[in-house]
Amino acid sequence: MRKALAEWLGTFFLVFAGTGAIVIDQASGGAIGHVGIALTFGLVVLVMIHTFGDVSGAHLNPAVTLGFAVAGRFPWRDVPNYLAAQLAGAFTASVLLRLMFPGPGTLGATLPAGSVAQSFILEIVLTAALMLVILSVSSGAKEKGITAGIAVGAMVGLEAMFAGPISGASMNPARSLAPALVSGHVQHLWLNPVATILGALLAVPLCRAVRSSDHPS
Amino acid sequence: MRKALAEWLGTFFLVFAGTGAIVIDQASGGAIGHVGIALTFGLVVLVMIHTFGDVSGAHLNPAVTLGFAVAGRFPWRDVPNYLAAQLAGAFTASVLLRLMFPGPGTLGATLPAGSVAQSFILEIVLTAALMLVILSVSSGAKEKGITAGIAVGAMVGLEAMFAGPISGASMNPARSLAPALVSGHVQHLWLNPVATILGALLAVPLCRAVRSSDHPS
Amino acid sequence: MRKALAEWLGTFFLVFAGTGAIVIDQASGGAIGHVGIALTFGLVVLVMIHTFGDVSGAHLNPAVTLGFAVAGRFPWRDVPNYLAAQLAGAFTASVLLRLMFPGPGTLGATLPAGSVAQSFILEIVLTAALMLVILSVSSGAKEKGITAGIAVGAMVGLEAMFAGPISGASMNPARSLAPALVSGHVQHLWLNPVATILGALLAVPLCRAVRSSDHPS
Amino acid sequence: MRKALAEWLGTFFLVFAGTGAIVIDQASGGAIGHVGIALTFGLVVLVMIHTFGDVSGAHLNPAVTLGFAVAGRFPWRDVPNYLAAQLAGAFTASVLLRLMFPGPGTLGATLPAGSVAQSFILEIVLTAALMLVILSVSSGAKEKGITAGIAVGAMVGLEAMFAGPISGASMNPARSLAPALVSGHVQHLWLNPVATILGALLAVPLCRAVRSSDHPS
Repeated sequence: MRKALAEWLGTFFLVFAGTGAIVIDQASGGAIGHVGIALTFGLVVLVMIHTFGDVSGAHLNPAVTLGFAVAGRFPWRDVPNYLAAQLAGAFTASVLLRLMFPGPGTLGATLPAGSVAQSFILEIVLTAALMLVILSVSSGAKEKGITAGIAVGAMVGLEAMFAGPISGASMNPARSLAPALVSGHVQHLWLNPVATILGALLAVPLCRAVRSSDHPS
Repeated sequence: MRKALAEWLGTFFLVFAGTGAIVIDQASGGAIGHVGIALTFGLVVLVMIHTFGDVSGAHLNPAVTLGFAVAGRFPWRDVPNYLAAQLAGAFTASVLLRLMFPGPGTLGATLPAGSVAQSFILEIVLTAALMLVILSVSSGAKEKGITAGIAVGAMVGLEAMFAGPISGASMNPARSLAPALVSGHVQHLWLNPVATILGALLAVPLCRAVRSSDHPS
Repeated sequence: MRKALAEWLGTFFLVFAGTGAIVIDQASGGAIGHVGIALTFGLVVLVMIHTFGDVSGAHLNPAVTLGFAVAGRFPWRDVPNYLAAQLAGAFTASVLLRLMFPGPGTLGATLPAGSVAQSFILEIVLTAALMLVILSVSSGAKEKGITAGIAVGAMVGLEAMFAGPISGASMNPARSLAPALVSGHVQHLWLNPVATILGALLAVPLCRAVRSSDHPS
Repeated sequence: MRKALAEWLGTFFLVFAGTGAIVIDQASGGAIGHVGIALTFGLVVLVMIHTFGDVSGAHLNPAVTLGFAVAGRFPWRDVPNYLAAQLAGAFTASVLLRLMFPGPGTLGATLPAGSVAQSFILEIVLTAALMLVILSVSSGAKEKGITAGIAVGAMVGLEAMFAGPISGASMNPARSLAPALVSGHVQHLWLNPVATILGALLAVPLCRAVRSSDHPS
């Protein structure tokens, strides 16, 4: 229960800050800019991992929870609670942002800038790389524990930085579904969940191939 | 006494650098920009925690001191000294900035960009989230000690980044009162202290709910 | 074999993210900007070191592998495998970027902005300094291990930041050769490999002179 | 001797990267921008501390060396060697930049944007705060050792960010004297050395007052 609450709070603030940066950037005539939005996403992931990592692992992302479960490092029976808490956190954030910023805006929904295929491939690669980083730094020697928040936050920040203008660089079904459904921008709604979950699953055999064991310690 | 001096010096430099960035940005035709201002706020909090954290805890913020006291993790009898030192530090910074940059400028006062309700709600959410991060990383395992400055500095930086264009993203009564009173921009003076203290107090039961104990160790 | 796979994956994502930032910046009308591109290069190096450092050392760069070998800290018999894996990773990234972003673009190739001599000298200095940092932080006391990713990532990021507008700030033959050959922009193709390898070798006697031993521990 | 070489190399690269960012920003029509220049200064200090901190302490700054000596934490007999090495490193950097970028530019000299008094007071405050941070994080518990590079690099970066448009935010006589003398922009040459050394000395009694001992451990 405490774990679900941590996932709810962590995903709430991840989506409130990250998509809030997009909403406020639009509301303020571009004051934040793309660099500021990408830094917000990276820093909020770093902070949430340091805040909730010791409670729930701070997945904050249904694709990550599924990746851990498929890798045999997270119990399947806890998956529904985690996914429900993550989705509830993301929807709470999008609803609160809509109340504070009424209007027709997208609330930070991730719509492909180019072709659907381009964004689909990009989200697979981005999420596979992110999940590989997470699987690599989330266990093992103690130094890894100290730097896990920095490594994963840096990864989310750099992926948002270089890939955001094309696919939105979501890597996270909860972060994409909530603003799309709350704002009613539901085109290509399937794209992000399918691509990010495929990407996260792809990381599992990659991690097995690079590391002698799934649980380096 | 040493603790009060540390809070005075730390809050002085927090406000001197952070609101100084706003003042110098205006004085130099926008050379620093919103991203530069937000990074200044985040980095100065990181540095002051590393510098004064082992002396006074580096609260640098009346709302944070009150939040720690309500959480039972700071003695009530030291609260008046801390609050006085923090306010004195902030006012010293605003007076020095006014002497160096005379004129009618706001000295970085936090005036709502939109409605009062919007900024009021935003500051409550921002400060509650900040206080929850502080309560989570300021005790517990040793790794947390190493990364407390990084996590809290990153949190202040990202909140300044995404929410600054709306409410000023102060999360700190001392940082808001000093420039407002020294520059004479006293509209909505009650907003920030009330919202940030409410937010900090809100974090205490949230932290109790997420963690089995107030003092995870 | 696992080491070669780690170098392949790490160099792939370094080039995919770093030169991808350049490609997407052009495709999106400058949304990322020079600061965003430089931060992407620095952050991806930080993340890849944390992810693959314990498997292969995360060289991700033929000049770095040669520098380690000349310093007597990497076996010469493993050099061909590492170089092949790094080049294969970089080419995979450039080919994938070309497939996703067809057209005549340079794919982030590093062409001198000014004279060839200027970029040649700059890449020697940049790579010598980078290799000296790597040799200094990649062995020794435990604290160094914790911060190696931060120090090397910060170095790549700051070199990309200040020197990128002149030479591209590659410091890496694989990162320069792949986009040049895949995009067909093969002017001055010799410049980067010659300058960066010279720079990396120059760091070896410098490190010996500064430190009593090549292997401070 | 190794210590002097470390100070020479570290100050060389600090000035080469930091003032190089200013030179290249001008040469490239503003590609780097003020935020990029400030980040370069902060990151290069972080990296040089991680690289040379265990050899020479990585002062890289005559004012810092004098501050340590006055605080009784550095032997006076080593001060001349350190100052000579730091000045030699800074001049080597400015000469190399002039050779690579001929012309009438200032090479990043720190000329006051407003009144001399304004920049003089600002450099005193900036250097006093920097020296107080350095004195606080450069001894004591082990965690401080790990984070010293981060704290001092962050401090230099944020001071360059918020104060750069007024005084150049040098905090360092070597970094100011070399570009001024090599480029021939020698107005107000006394300002920076006097203000920064005054500031560094001011930090010594402040640190004594905040901490029970000069050597917290």
